[in-house]
Amino acid sequence: MSNHPMDDLRGQIDEINMQILKLLNQRAETASQIGRIQQELGTTFYDPVRESEMLQELEKANNGPFSNETIKALFKEIFRATLALEETEARQKIIVQRKTADEKTVITLPDGTQIGNSAFTVIAGSCAVESAEQMEEVAAALSERGVRIMRGMAFKPRTSPYDFQGLGEPGLQIARQVANKYSMAVTSEVLDPSQVPMMSDYVDIFWVGARNMQNAHLLRALGKVQQPVILKRSFGASLKELIYAAEYIAYSGNPNIILMERGVRTFETWTRNTLDISAVPLLKMETHLPVIVDISHSAGRRDIAQPLGKAAKAVGADGLMVEVHPNPPVAMSDAKQQLTIPEFHALMDAIEGVTIN
Amino acid sequence: MSNHPMDDLRGQIDEINMQILKLLNQRAETASQIGRIQQELGTTFYDPVRESEMLQELEKANNGPFSNETIKALFKEIFRATLALEETEARQKIIVQRKTADEKTVITLPDGTQIGNSAFTVIAGSCAVESAEQMEEVAAALSERGVRIMRGMAFKPRTSPYDFQGLGEPGLQIARQVANKYSMAVTSEVLDPSQVPMMSDYVDIFWVGARNMQNAHLLRALGKVQQPVILKRSFGASLKELIYAAEYIAYSGNPNIILMERGVRTFETWTRNTLDISAVPLLKMETHLPVIVDISHSAGRRDIAQPLGKAAKAVGADGLMVEVHPNPPVAMSDAKQQLTIPEFHALMDAIEGVTIN
Amino acid sequence: MSNHPMDDLRGQIDEINMQILKLLNQRAETASQIGRIQQELGTTFYDPVRESEMLQELEKANNGPFSNETIKALFKEIFRATLALEETEARQKIIVQRKTADEKTVITLPDGTQIGNSAFTVIAGSCAVESAEQMEEVAAALSERGVRIMRGMAFKPRTSPYDFQGLGEPGLQIARQVANKYSMAVTSEVLDPSQVPMMSDYVDIFWVGARNMQNAHLLRALGKVQQPVILKRSFGASLKELIYAAEYIAYSGNPNIILMERGVRTFETWTRNTLDISAVPLLKMETHLPVIVDISHSAGRRDIAQPLGKAAKAVGADGLMVEVHPNPPVAMSDAKQQLTIPEFHALMDAIEGVTIN
Amino acid sequence: MSNHPMDDLRGQIDEINMQILKLLNQRAETASQIGRIQQELGTTFYDPVRESEMLQELEKANNGPFSNETIKALFKEIFRATLALEETEARQKIIVQRKTADEKTVITLPDGTQIGNSAFTVIAGSCAVESAEQMEEVAAALSERGVRIMRGMAFKPRTSPYDFQGLGEPGLQIARQVANKYSMAVTSEVLDPSQVPMMSDYVDIFWVGARNMQNAHLLRALGKVQQPVILKRSFGASLKELIYAAEYIAYSGNPNIILMERGVRTFETWTRNTLDISAVPLLKMETHLPVIVDISHSAGRRDIAQPLGKAAKAVGADGLMVEVHPNPPVAMSDAKQQLTIPEFHALMDAIEGVTIN
Repeated sequence: MSNHPMDDLRGQIDEINMQILKLLNQRAETASQIGRIQQELGTTFYDPVRESEMLQELEKANNGPFSNETIKALFKEIFRATLALEETEARQKIIVQRKTADEKTVITLPDGTQIGNSAFTVIAGSCAVESAEQMEEVAAALSERGVRIMRGMAFKPRTSPYDFQGLGEPGLQIARQVANKYSMAVTSEVLDPSQVPMMSDYVDIFWVGARNMQNAHLLRALGKVQQPVILKRSFGASLKELIYAAEYIAYSGNPNIILMERGVRTFETWTRNTLDISAVPLLKMETHLPVIVDISHSAGRRDIAQPLGKAAKAVGADGLMVEVHPNPPVAMSDAKQQLTIPEFHALMDAIEGVTIN
Repeated sequence: MSNHPMDDLRGQIDEINMQILKLLNQRAETASQIGRIQQELGTTFYDPVRESEMLQELEKANNGPFSNETIKALFKEIFRATLALEETEARQKIIVQRKTADEKTVITLPDGTQIGNSAFTVIAGSCAVESAEQMEEVAAALSERGVRIMRGMAFKPRTSPYDFQGLGEPGLQIARQVANKYSMAVTSEVLDPSQVPMMSDYVDIFWVGARNMQNAHLLRALGKVQQPVILKRSFGASLKELIYAAEYIAYSGNPNIILMERGVRTFETWTRNTLDISAVPLLKMETHLPVIVDISHSAGRRDIAQPLGKAAKAVGADGLMVEVHPNPPVAMSDAKQQLTIPEFHALMDAIEGVTIN
Repeated sequence: MSNHPMDDLRGQIDEINMQILKLLNQRAETASQIGRIQQELGTTFYDPVRESEMLQELEKANNGPFSNETIKALFKEIFRATLALEETEARQKIIVQRKTADEKTVITLPDGTQIGNSAFTVIAGSCAVESAEQMEEVAAALSERGVRIMRGMAFKPRTSPYDFQGLGEPGLQIARQVANKYSMAVTSEVLDPSQVPMMSDYVDIFWVGARNMQNAHLLRALGKVQQPVILKRSFGASLKELIYAAEYIAYSGNPNIILMERGVRTFETWTRNTLDISAVPLLKMETHLPVIVDISHSAGRRDIAQPLGKAAKAVGADGLMVEVHPNPPVAMSDAKQQLTIPEFHALMDAIEGVTIN
Repeated sequence: MSNHPMDDLRGQIDEINMQILKLLNQRAETASQIGRIQQELGTTFYDPVRESEMLQELEKANNGPFSNETIKALFKEIFRATLALEETEARQKIIVQRKTADEKTVITLPDGTQIGNSAFTVIAGSCAVESAEQMEEVAAALSERGVRIMRGMAFKPRTSPYDFQGLGEPGLQIARQVANKYSMAVTSEVLDPSQVPMMSDYVDIFWVGARNMQNAHLLRALGKVQQPVILKRSFGASLKELIYAAEYIAYSGNPNIILMERGVRTFETWTRNTLDISAVPLLKMETHLPVIVDISHSAGRRDIAQPLGKAAKAVGADGLMVEVHPNPPVAMSDAKQQLTIPEFHALMDAIEGVTIN
């Protein structure tokens, strides 16, 4: 019999909970009907004026003990949940978002190579196309280890206008020829919508760099191409922003998107960026897209490529991207992070040594 | 007559809103009664088991259209609001939090100097006590400009155990003697609770450095002293964490706390830290404590001391802290950021040149 | 006579220092001659293969006590200094970099309004053009307070493709008409090079947003226009990167660039970004360009607009940018940070109350 | 015969290089002799006044073409290299720093359990000791999977003084009894030097939390104990700072230190901190200490424990730390990140499924 008043009060709370539950669902039902009318009329669900008026009414009617601020905060949550429901029902859900546990986008290249199936895909090559000889030497090594996708970067986004900006279309020609010789696919960075038609003749996979991750014009233009797109996370972007950037491409018509994690900016200076390894499982949980780890630009140093490569495989990434150069110290960009060819072989050995059961 | 079904539906929503409002307040009223019983029993308001059970009941009863996740999220908000109400009512609100627009803590030193009233307080002095001559030379300059509070740091927290760790108690003796000669107050960093009794004989204001901002034992020990405490924000701490760290001191009995903003760690390398100037109005809005800006450790470079000093005054800080050394290049620490004596005079001129109306 | 061996050794060091000094300058002289030949030949100064060979020779010849790593590190510094000298001599110095203490770019708009002279310029207006009525109401208030430059944003870069993307050209028409009525200039964000010709008919100042700060194609296109350009720092960009982004515009022909500081991403969540107030004096020290502080996007909250505005003026910025909306809660974007019209007046009063002597 | 003048000039450069090389080593030799005298006298190697004088002499003697700034910058590099050489020669190298490729600290607990050898060590247990039943239930599960080291946290450092602060010594008693029953070792967090003697009776491994990573008094006190110490990286600390913090312990006499990576603060909000996986190979490269990954506090969410655990193993960590609770939703702290017992078993399965060859 102890705790009697407490039990009574708790019983009252339980009952109120049930009444609120019922009203919330009744409210959601009514809002859904409004949503259907709005959809027919072509107006948006979100109506800030109406929300503002409802909040004013509630404020006027509120006698406490909850303060007006609390009441408004709680109703804003209810509005948000209602809006979310309307959007869900209108099937306006994010295209790239995973809906079921086993949904996944598998990208198939013209030669049958797949990204996003159970295999671990290695994308490799020099930071930039510098010459046919350099590309040839790297391609031979990649081919030896079964790499099917080669970097062929001819437009380099650089911090300074005085730095090497890439060879342009002649660089793409070199990349294409070398790739053809070894029956490999070429991926190359695009910087502006105006480059898309020309580049379409040369590349198998478009590449959007960190600096353009939120360039909506470019993303929309890539929504119209046939080729898949690698979308690299900006070093200053949240995962949510990366997913919405992918949505710009998907929404514009191209579902074949590969996300690339490459590290975020932090105060730590021993690495160029801090590789956000947790991003891999989170992106795979939230989207159905393949996720690749760039182990070169994240670390910015070649000496930890092997452990990072092994971690990328173990964490469940669909592959990794690594820069390889015949002679890194004389490379025209990213000298400190490109692997030599023997280092590339050692990396491949290391990755192959990791088995996940 | 157009929009008829829409108007009807909106009318229904309005009515449901009012019913929910009524139930929410009824629920809050009942919860308050439970809170009063809990307070008598000495138990905490937060009861996760009970919350967990209520959520299970709601989930069982929910028939949609809201999903269980949405219902649980909305009720968690309601629980949170209820808990906040109980805590408010129990007057367990944060001691250092500002309750009214004009509440403010004004700290008065033995000589009548005040911090947190309308004046702009300058705290200055060398990074560390090195010798009587150095302290004397700096004190003379400070005194000339009306500075009433001098740094007298004898225990230096250093990254490496091989770096200069301060002169210890002899350093405090030097600081005390020089300060007495110029009738100034001494502030000095304390690193461990064990130093508090000895230091109490020498210092007028205790100083907690960034590395100890969350050292609860030290904060509690400083809650027992007579002297005010300067609490410096850690370069990795959020404002909320700084406020709670101050609360440890206030809760332990010492209400005389001065908050110090000193920059946070970011990727920008041109400054040692990024001075978070917005922290000043936010801390003054959220607490009633004086807020001081450290313009030396934030920038880590002397060449922007003047603009930062002017900004600190204009943004509404209660003062600033700046390091001054007779010969910065040979200082035993912080050589790059300490001002020379002529630079200190120029800074004082610059600050005095800013008038806020 | 004490310290005799020490004095001897120090004398030897002094002599070696002088010999090294002489050789370094002799080396620099010779390198300059090579630089002049390279310039005639049109080849770049930087020759990594040659550097690599020199390092190998030095390594072969080194007998210690300095390790090969140390020797290589020291010579890399010498190479870097030599290269910098060659570049300086070739007058390839950064165009936007300040060369003398009093050099400054003053931007003059068609109506004679100047940015970067001694006045403090306020740029204001709603986040986005929504309607003629809204623009009219805001413009009237701005005009009353002497604001000469109005925001007229018609293309909104948004995280989600489903968010309001701006009214497009019709929005520019509204902005232009309203601005004309009040004899104000319009600044508007451009997202893609393809928009530049059309927008040139409407806008007085182009605006590059944070997401496009490193969009080299856009920057180069803006190097060709007559209008000045506001270049906003990306929330993930270092100051060095911002300066080089400005250099892309200057290098392409447009010297009229206004830098805008708007906060960087940090772990602090009480503000949308952390306003980097130190960036203002640093940018003014390193470049001769005007620097404006965006107090809306940095804080992401309207309640600290006044202190931030005062700080921006006191720190030496050339002006500030603030968002104003007739009814912020119903704004189509940035609802939390736009000021109401009365709040805008209060901000203007606050700024006018700050006097810098 | 083409390029004749160029070849000549390059020949001159090569000769000057060799002369500079010779002088640098001669200078280093002389400085070493000075260093030996300084060591006998007990003075420090670093003499800023002497450096300042040398720079002034060089500036006076410099006739260009190198500017005084360049000359001073180059000589500062030479001074730095010389100082580094002196320090190396005096064997004052950092104790915890790895000197040879295969040097490693293997820590052996009283029962023979080793950390830092080839095995992958799992440290697990609830966030805090709450009751004997809870500890017993977790210990049984850990024991079943061969875990040899259990968390037994009785002093909790909390942001707010009103949060649960741990059970104190009674909590240690519970932890000890339960550990003894299952023949496990206990690790427990120490917050203040004053707790060390009492805790020594209960714990097998001391634990220093992120908030105390730079609490020099505590680190020195732990340099005097027999037990090994887990040193957790602060979320705001660089790797260099972590290594120096370990050096405080080693320097004070205790070589048995385990480093723990636990994520750093960034702008990303989907995880509590951003796990810095690159820290593992870097710490193992720079030090000879074991490195453990805390997969609970880094992510702050239980749903990615498995991929992070697999990544920790693959990247070469010596083990991981994970929080396990019989009923996480009612845990007194860290409710969102503690694993249930079935989730713990699934994690162990996942880790065991990773094989590194």
